[in-house]
This record gives sequence, C-alpha cells and structure tokens, in this order.
Amino acid sequence: MADRLVVIGADAAGMSAATNARRGQPYLEIVALEKGEWTSYSACGIPYLVGGELTSIDDLVARTPQQLREQHRIDVRLHHEVVGVDLTSGQLEVRDRLRQRTITMGFDRLHIATGARPFRPDVPGVDGDDVFGVQTLDDAKVLLERARLTGSQNVVVIGAGYLGLEMAEAFVRRGAKVTLLDAGEQVMRTLDRDVADKLVAPLRGLGVDVRLNVEVEAIDGGQVVTASDTITADLVVLGIGVRPNADIAGQAGIELGPSGAIAVNRRQQTSAEGVYSAGDCAEAFHLVAGHPVHIALGTVANKAGRVAGINIGGGYATFPGVLGTAITKVCEIEVARTGLTEREAITEGFKPVAVTVDTTARAGYLPDPGSMAVKLVAEAGTGRLLGAQILGEGKHVGQAAKRIDTVAVALHAGMGAAELVDADLAYAPPFSSVWDPVQVAARKLTSEL
Amino acid sequence: MADRLVVIGADAAGMSAATNARRGQPYLEIVALEKGEWTSYSACGIPYLVGGELTSIDDLVARTPQQLREQHRIDVRLHHEVVGVDLTSGQLEVRDRLRQRTITMGFDRLHIATGARPFRPDVPGVDGDDVFGVQTLDDAKVLLERARLTGSQNVVVIGAGYLGLEMAEAFVRRGAKVTLLDAGEQVMRTLDRDVADKLVAPLRGLGVDVRLNVEVEAIDGGQVVTASDTITADLVVLGIGVRPNADIAGQAGIELGPSGAIAVNRRQQTSAEGVYSAGDCAEAFHLVAGHPVHIALGTVANKAGRVAGINIGGGYATFPGVLGTAITKVCEIEVARTGLTEREAITEGFKPVAVTVDTTARAGYLPDPGSMAVKLVAEAGTGRLLGAQILGEGKHVGQAAKRIDTVAVALHAGMGAAELVDADLAYAPPFSSVWDPVQVAARKLTSEL
Repeated sequence: MADRLVVIGADAAGMSAATNARRGQPYLEIVALEKGEWTSYSACGIPYLVGGELTSIDDLVARTPQQLREQHRIDVRLHHEVVGVDLTSGQLEVRDRLRQRTITMGFDRLHIATGARPFRPDVPGVDGDDVFGVQTLDDAKVLLERARLTGSQNVVVIGAGYLGLEMAEAFVRRGAKVTLLDAGEQVMRTLDRDVADKLVAPLRGLGVDVRLNVEVEAIDGGQVVTASDTITADLVVLGIGVRPNADIAGQAGIELGPSGAIAVNRRQQTSAEGVYSAGDCAEAFHLVAGHPVHIALGTVANKAGRVAGINIGGGYATFPGVLGTAITKVCEIEVARTGLTEREAITEGFKPVAVTVDTTARAGYLPDPGSMAVKLVAEAGTGRLLGAQILGEGKHVGQAAKRIDTVAVALHAGMGAAELVDADLAYAPPFSSVWDPVQVAARKLTSEL
Repeated sequence: MADRLVVIGADAAGMSAATNARRGQPYLEIVALEKGEWTSYSACGIPYLVGGELTSIDDLVARTPQQLREQHRIDVRLHHEVVGVDLTSGQLEVRDRLRQRTITMGFDRLHIATGARPFRPDVPGVDGDDVFGVQTLDDAKVLLERARLTGSQNVVVIGAGYLGLEMAEAFVRRGAKVTLLDAGEQVMRTLDRDVADKLVAPLRGLGVDVRLNVEVEAIDGGQVVTASDTITADLVVLGIGVRPNADIAGQAGIELGPSGAIAVNRRQQTSAEGVYSAGDCAEAFHLVAGHPVHIALGTVANKAGRVAGINIGGGYATFPGVLGTAITKVCEIEVARTGLTEREAITEGFKPVAVTVDTTARAGYLPDPGSMAVKLVAEAGTGRLLGAQILGEGKHVGQAAKRIDTVAVALHAGMGAAELVDADLAYAPPFSSVWDPVQVAARKLTSEL
C-alpha cells in the first residue's frame, strides 16, 4: 500500500506542498483536511471583494477541491478540522464538522499548514457576532453577509496595519463611515514612523477617521468604547495582526519557536520525523535579522509550501528565508517595505544609517510624474544594505512601491549601498528618472556612511 | 595656479563627471566645451517632446549653463567644438562656432564625453535636410521646427529600435501617417524575435505602417525609395542606432576598443595619462558577456560619468559594468530587457535554456489585470541567470516591464534561477500575482535545466 501524506489546511502552504509532493511521488496517497469551505484561495484579495472590485467570492479561489482532486489526485475533505495529533501512533483525531462526528486517520507523513488566526484583544464583546477577523474566505463570507444585512453604515476597523488600511478603504468604497483605531502612535507599525506618518493625511482625505493612541475598552451592542469616546459601529473589523495556529502541533510535542509558531529547518522539517510545516503557522528565517521570525504572508506560504512539498515528495529543496517584504495601496498611495526598518535594525543590534529621498516616480518633466519617497537603511561602516521602505503617490499605481523588489534582491545578495548605486536598472522617461529613485537614495546613503 | 580639467561635451557623462570632480576638488578649474546649445539634458525625453506631452524643449534640461556656473563653478562654453587633441603638449584645438574662430586651450586633466551620433546608412539623400537623427537637443530643435513648418503629414522612421518605436508613436500623436521601416526581419533587434514579434500587432493597431525586411535605397525629395516601393515622406527620422563620437580621441592616439568606442578601465581612465572618458563615446564592461561593449544609454552615461568624476577629483571609484538594461513603451505596451537575449547568449558561447511565461501583471481576478510575458534565459547546467525580457500590456504602465530590475540586480549578484524563485518579492493583488511573474518564469526555468 502506498504511503499516505496528510496535509492539514488546504490553502496556500498546504496545497503548494501537496501539489509539489504529487509531482515527486505519483503513487503517494494525499489527503487534505480543511476545516473551512474553500481551498487554495487568495485571502489577500478579500478587501477587494469587500470593496466591490470583485463580485464573487469564488473569484478568489485559485484551485477548487474538484480541480485538486482531478488534476492532482488530492483527496480534499472540507469541514474537517484536526483536533489532535498523535505522533507515536501516527494518528490524527479529526472533527467532521458537517456530519458532527470525530474520526481517526492514520498518516505516514504529515504537513501542518494550519495558518493563523486574527489576534483578538482581551476586551469585553470582542467575540460578539458583529466583530470580524479577515483571515479566511469563511471569515469573508460572514463579514460580507453581515455588511449586506446591516447596510454597514458605520464601520470601525481596529488596527492600522496592511489589512486594516485595506479594509478601511474597502468600506469607504461601500459608502460606509469608517473609523480606523490604533493603540500605537502611528499607522503601519511595520514601517518607520516618518514613513508611516505620510499615510495619515491621504487616509483622512479619503474620508477615513484615523485615530491613533486609542485603546479599545469594550465592544458593546453596536458601539466601540474607548477611554475618551464611544463610536457607533454596525460592524467591527479586526486588523491587529495574527497569531499562528500552532496549538495542535504544540500539544503533540512538536517544537515551537519563541514566536509561538512551529519551528522548522531549511527543508521545512519540524522537530518530529516525517512532519513538515509551512505558511502562517510556521516560522521562517529572517535573512537580515539572522534568526527565525513569524511573518504571516501569502508569498512566504506559497514558497515555503513548495519547498516542503518537494522534500516530502523525495526531492531536495531548501527555503533560504524571508525579508518581510510587503506592499499595499490605499487609493493612489502605495507603500512597501523589505528587510529591516531603521527601528527594527536598532532592535536587532545594528547601528543603522538611514536616508530618505523625495522624488518623482517617472521623469519630472512628464505630466503626472507622481511622487515617491525612498527610505534606505544600511549598516554603519560596512554599508551593507539592511532594508528599504518606499511610498508612492500618483495615478500610475505600481510605478513606485513595487521597486522594493530591487532592494529585496539586493538584500538576498548581501549587497552594499555602493553596489546598488551602480546597478544597471531600467530607465525611460515614462518609468523612472535616469537615476532610479532607489539609486538616488543609495547614492545619498554612501555619502553618509 | 590650480589645475585645469577640460570636459568635452556638457551632457550626462560630461556634467556628471564635472560636478563630481568639483565635489572632490574645490579649487580645480573646470571648463566644459559643448558644441551644441544645451547642457545636461534628457535626450530620452525627445520623443515625448515631439509627441506633445511636453511643451518646451527647456523642460528637458536638468541643469542650465548658468546653474552649472553658479552652483558648481563650471565654466561652460557653448558652441565650442573640440577638433583636435594634442596629448604631448596638453593642448586642445577648439572651434568657436558662433565667433567662427579657432582657439587653443591647455588642459591638465581631460574628460572626453563626446557622445554618439546617429548611424546614417550609405544611401543617396541621407544627408538631406529632411532627414533627422534624434540624438541631441539640437537635433530635436531642428526636427521640431521642420515638423511644424511642413505639418509633417507623412513621416518615415527608418529603424525599429527603441528610438524608432518611440518616434513612430510621437508622430502618430501629432496626427501624422507614419511608416516604420526596418531592414531586419523583426522590430527591436535587442530583443529575441519571439518577444519582439509581439510588438508588431499593437504597433499596427496604433496606426503605424510597420514594414520589415525593407532596405532603403534612396531618400529623394519627399520620398523614401525601397526595392519594392516609394513612400511619401515630408520628414525622415533615423533610428538605426548610433556610432561613438570617438574620432578626436582616436586621432590623438587614445586607444579605441573593437566597437570603435574609447577603451576605458574600471576607473574610466583611457590609455592616456590623465585622460578619462564615459558615456556614449566610451566602452563599458558587459557583466554577463564578460567583455567590453558599446551601449549608448543615458543611465550608463550618468553612472560612468560619476565614477570618472570621483576619480578625476582625487577619489576612488570603479564602475562595475553594464547589463544592457533598457525599457520603453508604445502606448499601453511596455517592453524591457536586461543581460543577454537567448540569441546573444548563443553568440557569446553560452548554452542557454530559455522559457517564456504569459500571465497577468496583477492578480488575475481584479479588473484590468493586464498581461505580461516574461522570457528568462539561464545557462544550461549551472542555472546561472543570463538575461530576461519582459513585455507588458495594459492600463497600468510601469507595472510590468520595470520588474526587469529584479532580474538586473540578480544578474549583478550572479544569481541562479533557483535563487530567484525563492526571493522575497512584494505581493498584494493590485501589484502582482502571489508568485511574481518573474518568479513563475524562474520556477519553470529550474524545471528545464
């Protein structure tokens, strides 16, 4: 009888692994247990669904259970939640939520891709049915139903990170009055404050009521209560970040890292023989910080999942690690980051040198040249690049912030700022200034090292 | 008395050098001799001037002679053409074109930034006053005057390279009937044919009459004569490439490379003591091909000019070399390249493996996702990246082709295709698919190595 691989979680990290394992082992039995209703979907697309740019939740599904069954011979079982893992006997305890029964399933190899769940602050009312995380399509479905039901005239978004900003814009597009609360003194804590502060005026210009330094004290029957105020809320969205779904792994005795996520080596192997993990439930090695971190992003889930799958399938692959590269946009403002911010660099023990340049996204003499700010961080003395943040504004979305990839590849290569200055980047007036803004920043940086 | 640096040519390579030399040596006397009327301008912006996106030729000037004098203490002399260099005596013979006299000028250090001139095919009538190169603002000025004078109803562009395509679009925007001729079997010879062929239908859709495999036999009184046809032409634009203006250097005994451009080392020093060169008149080291090449691009001119200036000013800098990275757009089609094409890789002696992927520029489920084709070339066996070509189409200009920079930095770092697969590039639905198209291509490539 063929070996059986069980994959827990049928989204990015799970199905990347399963399809790659299939490629390596045509005779492997592959069972995917998914507690929700959807497989292989783009959770990052949920704000665009809520905002009305997409009409159907199914648009976000990259591979349906049927496609996974027919094209990859993966036995997908929806509404199946794994509630226990016994490593000694190689058995899973699985809750079949539709049939309301618990079954036992054996495995030879296991891939844990249980993802993450939205962090819920410890305040009264946070578990009410008007409070929504936006982590899965199941979350999105109930959120959308609620929004349609109530008309969602008054929306409060708690947490001004990527998801919070995207959801704020989405509800503005739906015609709602949106209040965006954050307990910190800035939006987007993954950016340095000087960069993040540039987002506030445009957000307010969009009509979002941005309130910083605000702690939520309670959520109660259509109201969000803070120390200073009570805000009407038909609907509350949580955007305070996520926590890894690593409970069943931890309970089974699989090693977790300091972040609480599942510890993995470069082949995505956990501490347990034959058990792999990838995606939002697992750690990844941060290439600049030099230690494992928990960064829940779809890009990482797909890439690390692929590496897990190649190894599960008998091949050899290693995942080098992450840079925390991320990007988002709010209307015509786009922002991206990679590597370490200046503040993170200090926390990691580096002595950083940072510069910011303000320039245009394309040749300044053309109509609508857009504006760009590039903040570049390098190590004092060596000039080694540590990270970058790019903010762009203008009608040509994608012109500015996606250039973060230039720095991301430079970070992978361990380049210094001086090397970036001389890199042969593409120029024509509709695309850039003759010195790419990233290089203008690098040039300034080299003069300050 | 202070040393005197004479810079021949006051555009990108010349003025980058001069301003950087000034930074290093406050007391250096710097004289810039410019045969034309403008300094430090964007020749790449000329098509946008002709097309009417800009209204004034002065918009293209980054630094005026007055700014160079006042801010950098550079003694700029316009309409001064250097006609002879005597290295033994350290003297230049200079033709003052306005005053119609020839003067002699001594130098201690010399920087040759004489640029390039459009190649003129050896056919009757090519020197007529209805035939225009588009290399300098002086060229642009007479071209624009002619176009306004004649109304330029019928324009023939000879040569379907970057400039040819851009000028074809510019004249379409002016309402002209444009015929684009090329002697080769494809447009854009700097691309592989399979990529270049994708540009033809959009060009024709724009209204450009694209004719390939056509040799011009004569240009004669408002007509361009080919073997098969006679085409009415109020105005003929040459876009067949350029030749380095290296005559005075060669006559002075300075070493030229096989390309006919001035040979330089990594510090931009020529074979003559104290004589530097950079820009379109000089060679540059091709990082993938591994030998010097002549590539006339503003980006290279600025970067190599800066390196020359740092060295002239007593500092130390080296220019690592070029990748031939280039980008352009025609309406909503954008195209870029870096490194070697598949065909060039074969010519250089590599055994290449090439793949092309066709995908969307942003998440496929969003409205207007655009389309992208990425062709990636690597060395067989090692998997080392050799080059890339990207073609994009859609309303979000800049979304697609500027990603060539990702590959450019990877080429600088000598990365393999497998390393690019795992690079932590930025993703959000409005910017990319979760696997960046460049990585989709890299993934496919690794499976075919």
